[in-house]
Amino acid sequence: MKALVYHGPGKKAWEEKPKPTLIKATDAIVKILKTTICGTDLHIMKGDLPDVTDGRIIGHEGVGIVEETGSSVNNFKKGDHVIISCITSCGKCEYCKKGMYSHCVDGGWILGNLIDGTQAEYVLIPHADNSLYPIPDGADEEALVMLSDILPTGFECGVLNGQVKPGDTLAIVGAGPIGMAALLTAQFYTPAEIIVIDTDENRLAVAKTFGATHTINNTDGKAAEKIAKLTNGKGVDVAIEAVGVPATFELCEAIIGAGGHIANIGVHGKSVVLHMETLWSKNITITTRLVDTVTTPMLFKTVQSKKIEPKKLITHHFKLSEAVEAYETFGNAAKEKALKVIMTAE
Amino acid sequence: MKALVYHGPGKKAWEEKPKPTLIKATDAIVKILKTTICGTDLHIMKGDLPDVTDGRIIGHEGVGIVEETGSSVNNFKKGDHVIISCITSCGKCEYCKKGMYSHCVDGGWILGNLIDGTQAEYVLIPHADNSLYPIPDGADEEALVMLSDILPTGFECGVLNGQVKPGDTLAIVGAGPIGMAALLTAQFYTPAEIIVIDTDENRLAVAKTFGATHTINNTDGKAAEKIAKLTNGKGVDVAIEAVGVPATFELCEAIIGAGGHIANIGVHGKSVVLHMETLWSKNITITTRLVDTVTTPMLFKTVQSKKIEPKKLITHHFKLSEAVEAYETFGNAAKEKALKVIMTAE
Amino acid sequence: MKALVYHGPGKKAWEEKPKPTLIKATDAIVKILKTTICGTDLHIMKGDLPDVTDGRIIGHEGVGIVEETGSSVNNFKKGDHVIISCITSCGKCEYCKKGMYSHCVDGGWILGNLIDGTQAEYVLIPHADNSLYPIPDGADEEALVMLSDILPTGFECGVLNGQVKPGDTLAIVGAGPIGMAALLTAQFYTPAEIIVIDTDENRLAVAKTFGATHTINNTDGKAAEKIAKLTNGKGVDVAIEAVGVPATFELCEAIIGAGGHIANIGVHGKSVVLHMETLWSKNITITTRLVDTVTTPMLFKTVQSKKIEPKKLITHHFKLSEAVEAYETFGNAAKEKALKVIMTAE
Amino acid sequence: MKALVYHGPGKKAWEEKPKPTLIKATDAIVKILKTTICGTDLHIMKGDLPDVTDGRIIGHEGVGIVEETGSSVNNFKKGDHVIISCITSCGKCEYCKKGMYSHCVDGGWILGNLIDGTQAEYVLIPHADNSLYPIPDGADEEALVMLSDILPTGFECGVLNGQVKPGDTLAIVGAGPIGMAALLTAQFYTPAEIIVIDTDENRLAVAKTFGATHTINNTDGKAAEKIAKLTNGKGVDVAIEAVGVPATFELCEAIIGAGGHIANIGVHGKSVVLHMETLWSKNITITTRLVDTVTTPMLFKTVQSKKIEPKKLITHHFKLSEAVEAYETFGNAAKEKALKVIMTAE
Repeated sequence: MKALVYHGPGKKAWEEKPKPTLIKATDAIVKILKTTICGTDLHIMKGDLPDVTDGRIIGHEGVGIVEETGSSVNNFKKGDHVIISCITSCGKCEYCKKGMYSHCVDGGWILGNLIDGTQAEYVLIPHADNSLYPIPDGADEEALVMLSDILPTGFECGVLNGQVKPGDTLAIVGAGPIGMAALLTAQFYTPAEIIVIDTDENRLAVAKTFGATHTINNTDGKAAEKIAKLTNGKGVDVAIEAVGVPATFELCEAIIGAGGHIANIGVHGKSVVLHMETLWSKNITITTRLVDTVTTPMLFKTVQSKKIEPKKLITHHFKLSEAVEAYETFGNAAKEKALKVIMTAE
Repeated sequence: MKALVYHGPGKKAWEEKPKPTLIKATDAIVKILKTTICGTDLHIMKGDLPDVTDGRIIGHEGVGIVEETGSSVNNFKKGDHVIISCITSCGKCEYCKKGMYSHCVDGGWILGNLIDGTQAEYVLIPHADNSLYPIPDGADEEALVMLSDILPTGFECGVLNGQVKPGDTLAIVGAGPIGMAALLTAQFYTPAEIIVIDTDENRLAVAKTFGATHTINNTDGKAAEKIAKLTNGKGVDVAIEAVGVPATFELCEAIIGAGGHIANIGVHGKSVVLHMETLWSKNITITTRLVDTVTTPMLFKTVQSKKIEPKKLITHHFKLSEAVEAYETFGNAAKEKALKVIMTAE
Repeated sequence: MKALVYHGPGKKAWEEKPKPTLIKATDAIVKILKTTICGTDLHIMKGDLPDVTDGRIIGHEGVGIVEETGSSVNNFKKGDHVIISCITSCGKCEYCKKGMYSHCVDGGWILGNLIDGTQAEYVLIPHADNSLYPIPDGADEEALVMLSDILPTGFECGVLNGQVKPGDTLAIVGAGPIGMAALLTAQFYTPAEIIVIDTDENRLAVAKTFGATHTINNTDGKAAEKIAKLTNGKGVDVAIEAVGVPATFELCEAIIGAGGHIANIGVHGKSVVLHMETLWSKNITITTRLVDTVTTPMLFKTVQSKKIEPKKLITHHFKLSEAVEAYETFGNAAKEKALKVIMTAE
Repeated sequence: MKALVYHGPGKKAWEEKPKPTLIKATDAIVKILKTTICGTDLHIMKGDLPDVTDGRIIGHEGVGIVEETGSSVNNFKKGDHVIISCITSCGKCEYCKKGMYSHCVDGGWILGNLIDGTQAEYVLIPHADNSLYPIPDGADEEALVMLSDILPTGFECGVLNGQVKPGDTLAIVGAGPIGMAALLTAQFYTPAEIIVIDTDENRLAVAKTFGATHTINNTDGKAAEKIAKLTNGKGVDVAIEAVGVPATFELCEAIIGAGGHIANIGVHGKSVVLHMETLWSKNITITTRLVDTVTTPMLFKTVQSKKIEPKKLITHHFKLSEAVEAYETFGNAAKEKALKVIMTAE
C-alpha cells in the first residue's frame, strides 16, 4: 500500500509500505476513506517529537471501512464504516475506567506517533472496540473526520474543562483550527459573549462567522486592556488558551475574572510564568488536558442532529495520494487561509 | 478601650483607642472574648501589606458577645455569643450570591486590614447578619476561634478545591497552622494516604499525631523523589500548597499525578514557574482561593459533633492584654513550637 | 390605588386599596409598569390555596419603578427600573445562603400569597436588595416580565434539575406556559432531540416553532409507546414534568431511560404511583423544586445577549385596569390560544 | 466439581456439576476460595426471580485464584488472587463507558442469575479483565469478599447517590447487611449524625457499634415523629432506603428535609406512593441504582489503608461444602444474629 512516511526532520514521502496485518485479537485493520492533517503533524515533520522515528507513517485522524477484525472484536465487522479516534483506549486499565483514555496504559496517543498512523491506505487500530466509533448509513463522513481529534480536543480541553455556562463571557485566545473547534462547541452552552483573540485578520473574520461576538487583533498587544474595558474591569468568566506559547497563556492570566476558569488546550514547549502574586486570591481554576475523546459519542449526536456543522472547519480538499501537497497547503495555513484539509482515498 | 495597634513596619502597641460605635443599621458591636494571631498579621507587622495603615487595630479572628446591634440586624441580639468570620459578607452582591464572599463588593477581608480588627476589647462588625455565626450554650468557645479563619481556609482552599476523596493519596506541602488545618479537615473525606512535607521536625512529628500517614523532611530537597517512590511513580492525587513561595508550589507541580489537583492555599508574593511543557498533557487542575468562609456552618456541625478537634491547633495561651507577648511567641513559631495562640479577655 | 383583589373562591375585583407604605428598613415600594398572570393565580381564584385569604392582592410577577426605599436598601434607589422576583429572599438565612431562596425563612413565595402582590398599581417588596433585579436603560421590559417566575421556573426546576446536556434526548410533558419555558431554556444546553407531549394541537404546533424536534398528541394515550419507538426502546435521557397530575408524572416514569433524570415542575395536588418495582434498578434520578430564582442574573444575561426571546411566550396584552378581562382570557387559555398575558399600567 | 444448585422454588442442593471451561477469549476460570450469600439469593431460592432457572449455580460474590484465562485476558494470569465483582462489565458498550456497568449490554448482574455463579468450586467469569480485581499478597481475603457486592452497593446506591457530606444528618432505614454497608461507608464523608432505623433490637445495637449516633426501633411506627423532634422539625439531609418495601420508602419521604436526598438501595417488588402533593415544593432528589461496582478500586484502597473494617460485617463461617447449612443460618438472620456468612473452600 501507499502511505505518508516520516524520514527525519524535514523529510517525508508518499511511498510504498507493507499493508498492516492483525497482531492481536483486539485489533482491526481499517481501509482509510478520508483523513486530515493536525498541527501536531507539522511539529513531527520538523523533528520536534523525538519519539517519532524514521519510517513512521504519520496521521491520527480519519474515517474508513473495517477491512478485518481480530477474534475478540465484537462491536465491529468487515464493511462497517467507522470514525478512527486519535486516542487508543484499552477500556480496562485504571485510566480508561476513569474516562481518562489519554493516559491509557496500553494506548493513549500512539497513532502516527508510536505506531503507524492514518495518512495511508490502511491502518491497524489496536483495541478496536474502544477506539473506533460506528458511522450509520447516510452520515456525512467528511464532517465526521472532525470527530477524530479536533472537535473533542476543543470541547474537552477547552469548553468542558472551562465549564462554560449560559450567560458567560468567554475569551478564546488563538483562532487556529483548535480555537475554532472550541468556538463552535462552546456554543453548546450558550455563553452571552465570545471574544476571540488572534493576530490574523482573516481568522478573526472567520471567527465572526462562526459565532464570535467580539474579535480582537492583538498585534498591538492591547488585548488585555480591551477586554478589561469590555468587561467593566471584571475580566472574563472563562479563558481558553488555544496556542501553546507563554505569551498567550499569560494573556489568559491577565484577563481572567475572579472565580474564573483558564482552560489550556495548547501544546506547550516551554514553561510559563504564573502570576501567583495576584492570582492566589482570585479563586481561579487552571486546567490542562490531553484530549480523552470520551465525548465522541456525545459530539456525534450533536453532529447528527445538526446542532453543529463541523464541515465549516474544512477549507481544502486533496486526494490521499496528494498528501505531500496537502502538507504544503496546511503548512502555509495563514497564507492559504487553511483550517482543516481533507485527503480522500480514490 | 484597649487594642493592639499597628504603627508602621515593626511598630505595634497595646494602647487606648475609642470604643467603636454603630455606623450602619446592619452593623453590630462585639465584645471580644477570645482572639488569635494569623500568619498574615505577622506580614502586616513587617509592612508587607501597604493597605494597612498606621493606627489600624489588627486581627480578623475571634469569638465574642454581641454588645449592640443596628436596627436591620435580625439574626443576633445583645448578649448572643458569636463566632466572628474573618470575611465580611453583605449577602446581596453578585459575589456573595455565588458563595464567593471573599470578593464581596462591600466586604471580603477587611477586618484588621481596611477597618479595625479583633485584637481589641471591642470590634465593629459590618453586615453582622452575614458575618457572624451563633454559638449555642455549652459550646467550647476556644475551639470555635479556629472557625474564624484557619479551618475554613484549610478546608475550602485546600481540601474542597483539591477535591479530596476516599482512597486518595494526598500531599500537604507545609506543616504550619494552615497546613495542619488542611490535614485535619482532609480527613473528612477519608484519603488513604496523607503525606506531609516540611523542614521542621517538630511540626512533622505533630503532623503524625494529627493523622499524617507519612512525613517527609525536605531539608535535603528530595521530597519529589521520595514521593515518586511512595506512589510507584504515579504521583499524588491531590497536592495542597500551604506555604506560599515558589519552591513549594513547584514541588506540588513535580509530585502531582495525571488527573490530579493542585490546591493552593499559600499567600504568594512572587510569580512561580509553571511547567506547562510537562503539565499540558497531564489532565491536572490548579486552584487558587481566598477563603470564602462559606463552609463555616458545615464546619461548625463537624466541631459540635466531635468529628474534628480544632483545639489540637492551640499551643499557647495569653491574656488579651498580653497581645504583644503573644506576637513574640507566635513570631518565633518554630522555636516556640507554636501553632495557634489564644488571647483571652479578662 | 387600584388592585386586583381576591374575595374568596370565584370572587375577585379590580378595586381601590390603600397604597402600601414601607414597614422595614429593607423594604421597597415599587410602582408596577407591567405584570402578568400565573397558572397558580387561577388556582388561587378557585380557592385551591387556603393560605390566600379574602382581601389579598394577587400576583407575583412584574417589572416596575422603585418609588421609595427603606434605609437599609443599598442596591436600589427611587427611579430605578426593576424586575420583581416571584421569590422573596432575605439573603441571610440558612436556606438563602445555600441558594435555596424558595425556602427562605423570612420570604420564599409570599407575594400575592401571604402578602399583597403585583397585580396592583404599587407593591411593597420585602428584602428589596435580594428580591429585585436591576433593569438597565434600553432593555425590553415586557420580555423581562418573563424573568419574574416562568423562565427561572422552567429553567431551574426542569432544565437544570434535569441536567440536560448536549446530544441528549429530552421529553417535555406538557406544553403550557411552563413547559414552553422549559423548552426555550433547555436549548441553552443543545439537546439533540426535544419531544414535546400534550393533548392540545395548537400548543404542539407552537412548540414546534419554539424548537421541539418532535411533538406527540397524547389524546390516544400512546405517547410512551411512540417514545419507545423513537428511542429504539432506550427511553429518554431527561423527562420534564410540566403539568402536575398523576398521569403525566407516570408518563415520565414510563419513558425514562436507564441513567435518566425526571425533573418535576408541576404543582401536584395528589400523590402519584412510583413504580419502584421497575425503577429500583434503572439508575434514575427524580427531582422536585420550588423555583429559587437563583438563576435570574444568568437568565438576564442570556436575554440581553439575545440567546433567548422570552417575548415569544407573550400572546395577549391588556391594560392593568383590565385585569379582570385578562383573567378571563388566561382562564380560557386553550380556546384563546393564550400563553402569557401582559397587563400594562397606563 | 461441587456447587450449590437451584432446582426451583424451595429446592437446592450441594451437588456435582461439570467444571466450567473457557468459552470466549475474554473469559477466565476462577477457583473459589471464599464466597458468601446475598439477600437476593434468598429471593432466588423462594422463586421470586423467574429468570433464574432449574439447574443454575447460585452466588455472585467471592474471592478466588485464577485457574485459566482466555487469550485476550491481559490483566490476569493463572495463580493471581482476585476479587470477583457481582457485576460483569464488558468495558466497551455505551453503558460501561459511562461507568454504568450495571446496564452493560453483555454483562450486568448475570452471575448466579443468567449464568452459573460463585457458590461452587469453580466459576467462569466473562470479560475477566473488567470484572475481576487483583488482590495483592498479604491482603485479608475474607474482608475483600465484602467488595464483591455489599460494600459497593451500600456505598454507590446509598452514600454516593445520597451525596452525604461533612456535617450532614443522615438516616438509614434498615439495619440489615446492606444498611450496615451504607452505615460503614457513609462515614467516609463524616456526617455529624447518623440515625439508624429498624425493628430488630440486636441489629440496632450492632449499628451503634458500627458508628450510628442514634438508633430508633420503629416497632411502634413513630420513627418519623422521633426524627422530626431530633432535627427540630427540619428533617434529615439524606435518607437511605435499605429495605425495599413501600413502608420504608414512605418513611424516607416523611423524614426528608427541604433540599434533601432520598437514596434507594432496596430491591422493590411493588410500587410505592410518592407524596408529590407535599414533596413537589421541597427541592428533593430521589435516586435509584443497581450497583455498578465502579467504586471497587476506591473501596479497595480504603480497605487496604484500614479506613474501614469490612470484616465487621461477617458474623458466621462455614466450609464451602456446608453451603446448605450456611443458607439455613443466613435465612434465619434475625434469630441467628447473622449479617454476612463466609463459606471457605477446603
